[in-house]
Amino acid sequence: MLCTLGIDFGTESVRVLLVDVATGKILDQQSQSYRHGVLDRELPGGAKLPPDYAFQHPQDWLADSFTACRTLMKRNAKLREAVIGIGVDFTSCTMLPCRSDGTPLCQATDFAQSMMAWPKLWKHHGAKAATDRINEVARGRKEKWLDHYGGAVGIEWFFPKALETLEKDARVYAAADLFIEGGDWYVWQLTSGLYPTSDPRQIVRSTCQAGYKACWSEQAGYPSPAFLGAVNPRFKTFVQDKMPGEHRAPGVSAGELCNAAAAKMGLPAGLPVSTVIIDAHAGLPGAGVAGAGAMVMVIGTSSCHMMNHTRMRLVPGVAGVVKDGILPGFYGYEGGQASVGDALAWVAATTKTSHEQLNREGLALPAGSGGVLALDFLNGCRSPLMDAKMSGGFVGVTLNTRPAQLYRAMMEATAMGARWFMDTMQQGEVPIRRFVASGGLPPKSPLLMQIYADVLNKPIYMAESDQSVALGAAILGAIAAGPAKSGHRTISHAITAMARQRKDLVYKPNRASAKQYAKLYEMYLALANGRCELRTVMHQLRDMTQL
Amino acid sequence: MLCTLGIDFGTESVRVLLVDVATGKILDQQSQSYRHGVLDRELPGGAKLPPDYAFQHPQDWLADSFTACRTLMKRNAKLREAVIGIGVDFTSCTMLPCRSDGTPLCQATDFAQSMMAWPKLWKHHGAKAATDRINEVARGRKEKWLDHYGGAVGIEWFFPKALETLEKDARVYAAADLFIEGGDWYVWQLTSGLYPTSDPRQIVRSTCQAGYKACWSEQAGYPSPAFLGAVNPRFKTFVQDKMPGEHRAPGVSAGELCNAAAAKMGLPAGLPVSTVIIDAHAGLPGAGVAGAGAMVMVIGTSSCHMMNHTRMRLVPGVAGVVKDGILPGFYGYEGGQASVGDALAWVAATTKTSHEQLNREGLALPAGSGGVLALDFLNGCRSPLMDAKMSGGFVGVTLNTRPAQLYRAMMEATAMGARWFMDTMQQGEVPIRRFVASGGLPPKSPLLMQIYADVLNKPIYMAESDQSVALGAAILGAIAAGPAKSGHRTISHAITAMARQRKDLVYKPNRASAKQYAKLYEMYLALANGRCELRTVMHQLRDMTQL
Repeated sequence: MLCTLGIDFGTESVRVLLVDVATGKILDQQSQSYRHGVLDRELPGGAKLPPDYAFQHPQDWLADSFTACRTLMKRNAKLREAVIGIGVDFTSCTMLPCRSDGTPLCQATDFAQSMMAWPKLWKHHGAKAATDRINEVARGRKEKWLDHYGGAVGIEWFFPKALETLEKDARVYAAADLFIEGGDWYVWQLTSGLYPTSDPRQIVRSTCQAGYKACWSEQAGYPSPAFLGAVNPRFKTFVQDKMPGEHRAPGVSAGELCNAAAAKMGLPAGLPVSTVIIDAHAGLPGAGVAGAGAMVMVIGTSSCHMMNHTRMRLVPGVAGVVKDGILPGFYGYEGGQASVGDALAWVAATTKTSHEQLNREGLALPAGSGGVLALDFLNGCRSPLMDAKMSGGFVGVTLNTRPAQLYRAMMEATAMGARWFMDTMQQGEVPIRRFVASGGLPPKSPLLMQIYADVLNKPIYMAESDQSVALGAAILGAIAAGPAKSGHRTISHAITAMARQRKDLVYKPNRASAKQYAKLYEMYLALANGRCELRTVMHQLRDMTQL
Repeated sequence: MLCTLGIDFGTESVRVLLVDVATGKILDQQSQSYRHGVLDRELPGGAKLPPDYAFQHPQDWLADSFTACRTLMKRNAKLREAVIGIGVDFTSCTMLPCRSDGTPLCQATDFAQSMMAWPKLWKHHGAKAATDRINEVARGRKEKWLDHYGGAVGIEWFFPKALETLEKDARVYAAADLFIEGGDWYVWQLTSGLYPTSDPRQIVRSTCQAGYKACWSEQAGYPSPAFLGAVNPRFKTFVQDKMPGEHRAPGVSAGELCNAAAAKMGLPAGLPVSTVIIDAHAGLPGAGVAGAGAMVMVIGTSSCHMMNHTRMRLVPGVAGVVKDGILPGFYGYEGGQASVGDALAWVAATTKTSHEQLNREGLALPAGSGGVLALDFLNGCRSPLMDAKMSGGFVGVTLNTRPAQLYRAMMEATAMGARWFMDTMQQGEVPIRRFVASGGLPPKSPLLMQIYADVLNKPIYMAESDQSVALGAAILGAIAAGPAKSGHRTISHAITAMARQRKDLVYKPNRASAKQYAKLYEMYLALANGRCELRTVMHQLRDMTQL
C-alpha cells in the first residue's frame, strides 16, 4: 500500500491525514490545537490588540503540525516508507513579514511587541483604510486585473495587509526582507530547511494564494509598480523588493522534505511536497471533482463556491478567476458568501434555541417559512456584490412568527445567495452542470440541503468524505509525487480514484417547493439589489403563505 | 364627599373604580376576571372555533361587573349615598345580535351552538371577506363617509361583523331583532331593565362607537340603504330594520340606573349612567386632557392616539374623525398603531430575554440601536396606511447584533410610527401642541418614553393616573350627573379637576438623539412607504453607528 499525507491548517488547529493513495481511504489522522490559538486580544508579550485584529503564532504552525505528524507516524510506523508525498492546505490570506533566512519578524527580539510584525490571520480586519485606498486607486486607473475579482479587492487580501504594515509601522516594513503567505512560508520551511537556515532562492509561491488573494496572474504578474506607487510612493517597489519566489500550481512539487523537518515529523527526508493550496480550495479535489463545470460549495460558518472550467470569462461579481488557481490546467472560479453557518448560529443564539430543535421545527414549515423572508448579509455580501456594508435582516415578521421561521428563512436566504452566484456565473457564460456540497454543515442538516436543492432547482450531490479539505491536500501530495510513484496516470485519475460523491444520498428538488422559491427569489433579489417597494414585498409575502 | 363610579370593560376582565368627584382621587377599586374569558377555541357548548374567531360571553359582562361593583360598595358602604353617577367604557367594536327584549341571541336555546349568535369581540377577525367586499363597493361608489376613515373600513368594525353574520348564518341574522355594540347593550341593560325586560325604545347608542366603528355621523347617519344593498341586496335595510336607537355623546346621560341592576350592584336606583365610550378613548379625559390640540397616546399592546380639535379636517390616513366622538363639542381624531407592546413582547419572547434586562441593556445603546432599524408592523399598519398586510422586520442585522438592539430598535420603530401619525396630522392641518402618554407601558419603561421624546422631538407628558381609562369613565359619570350635582361648571372643569399630567416627570428631547433619529426616520419612511433601495439604507445604517 502507498500513502500520502494531507496537512490541513485551519483557524484553530492543524490536522494531519494519512491516506491510501489507491482508494483515498483515510487510514488514520491526528489533529492538534494551536498552542497560542488565535491572537485577537493580546500578543504573547501582553500588548493589547484592537478589536478587529487577528494574528497567529508562526511557531504553532511548525511545532503543532510536527507534533501531530510525529504522533500519527509513530502510530503507523509500518507505513513510514509507504508515504510518497505531502500536500498542504492553509487559510488565506494569512501572511507574515520575515527575514530572508525564513525567520518570522515577530520572532526577532526587536519586533516581538510590534503588532505589524505578527502573522495576520485571514480574518484580521485592520486594513480597512488600506483596502479603500487600493480600491479607489485601482478603479481610478481602471486596472485590468480588477476585472478578475469582480471589481474589488477584499479587506482580507494580501496587498491591503502589506500596505497596512507599511502605513502603520514603517520600521517593521523596512526590516522585513519579504512578505509571504503563511502556507507558502510553511512549505518553504519544509523544503528549504527550517529558519534561520531557509534559502530565499527556494521560495515557491502558490498560484492559488497569489491568484485569489494577491491579484497575480501568470500573464501579467502582480499589480505594477506604477499602480503601487500611486497608492503610496513608498509602496512602489514592494513587489520587486519584498516578494521573491517562483509561482507553481497546487499539485506541482515545491521541493523535497528537508532533513530538519523530516526528523521532527517522523518521515523520511526527500519526500515531494506539493505547492500549497487555500484550505477551501482543497475541498474541490477532496470532493471528488476532477473536471470542468462542477461547482463545489464548501458550506461552513461561511461558504466558498469553487469551480474549474476550461473557459475563461470575466464575470462581474465573481470574486476570483485564476488560471491554475485550484488545479493545474483549468481556470478556477471562486465566489463566496460571508455568513452561512454563522448566520444560522446567530439565529440560534439570539433565540436561545438549539440547532437541533430549530432544524426539527424548520422541517415542518412550508417553503417560504410561512411568509418570512431573510437577508443573509450579516457579515456583508461577498459574491456577487463585494459589499462589506450590506447587512442582514428579516421581512414578513408577525406577532405569530416563531424562532424556527427565522431560522428556516435564514437557511432559505443562504440558498438564495448561492443561487444568485449560480445565476451570475450562468449569465457570465460559465455554466454549472453539477452541484456538490461539502464542508461542516451539509452532513449536519438534511433540511439545509433539501432547501438548497429546491432553491437552486438542481440535485445536490454530497461529498463522500467529511474531511474533504484535508483529503484534497493529501490528493495533491499524491499528485505532486507524480504518476510513476502514485500509479495515477493523470491528475483527474488521481482525484476520481481517491475522492467521490455519495451515491446513496442525493437531494433532489421538489417541484412545488421550487416553484414557491422562484417567487421568493425574485423578492430576495429585489431587496438585495434592486429598487423596490418593501411594502409590495410584504404584500407578496402575506399572499404567499399563511401560518 | 361626592363619588362617581367608572366601569372599565377590558378584554380579560372588568374593573370598577370609586372616585372622588372633587379631586379625581381613586378611593377604591375592584376588578373581576371574566368567568368565560375570551372564547377563541370553543363555545361553552363545545363547538370548536376557527383560529381567527374571538367571542365573549354577555352574561360575564353583567355578572362579573355586578360582582365587582357589589364587592366594592360593600367595602365602601358609607359612600353608597355619595355616588352621583356612573360612567362606562368598553372595548369596541364588540357587538352582538339580540332580541328586542335585550336577550342576547346566544342565550336563546335555539342559538347557543350557532357561532354567529355570539358577541364578537373587537379582535374577532372572521369578517375578512365581508371587509374586502365593503371596501370594494365603498371605493367603487366613492362613498363620502369613507374619507372620514382614511379611506378604508377595518376588519374589526361594525358593518363587516354584521355582514359576516348575514352571509355565514342567515338564520341568526333573521332571528336578530337588533345588532348593538356590547357597551351600548350594557348601558341599555343598566338603564332599561335587565333582559328579557329591556325596552328597545330606550336604546342609546354612543356617538363614539357609532362614529369610529360604524361609519356614522350626526350629519349623514349610517351608510345608506343604496350602499348596503350594493354590498348585498339582503343587507339593504339592515340599518332601518336592526339598528334602532338614539345617538348621544359620551358624558351625556343615557338614562337612570334601573332597580334590577341597582340591586345587583349595591347602588341606589336612579343614578345617571353616562353614554358609553370606547375604552381607549376614555383615556383622553382620564389623562387630564380637556381642550383641543393635545394628543393622548394610550400605549399598551397596541397604541391608540386620540385628540380633540375644534377644526374639522379630513386627513388621509387618519383612522377616524368624528364629531362628538370623544367628548361633546369637539371633533375627535383617532389613529392607532396595531402593535407596540405586542411587538416588544415578541422580541422578548423570541430572544427569551426579560423586558427588564432588555430595557437595561437598551438604555446603554446609542440612538439608532447601533445600526439596526426595525419595522413595527407585526400586526399590520393601522395609521396611516390602514394596511393589514404590512409586516414587521429588521434591517442592519450583523453577526454582532444582540437582542437588546432588536428590542431598542423596535421601540424606536414604534416611536417613528407615532411620529408618522403626527406628521400626517400636521400635514392635514391639524396641529398637535402637546403629547401625553398613558396606558400600561409608559410607566414601565422610561427608556421607551425618552425614545418617544427624542423621535418626536417634543416633550412627552405623563398621565398622572395609571388607571386613566377607568378614571376617564368615572369622570364621564360625574359629567353625566350634571354641574348641579358634580359641582364642576363645565366638562372642561370636571376633567382638569379630576385628572392631570405629572409635573415631576416630563421627558424632554435630547438634541443629539433627535438629530440622529431625524435621519433614521427618513429611512423608516422610505422602507415603510417608499420606493427605495434597501442596499442604500443598509449603507446608511452602517455609516450611522458602529457598535
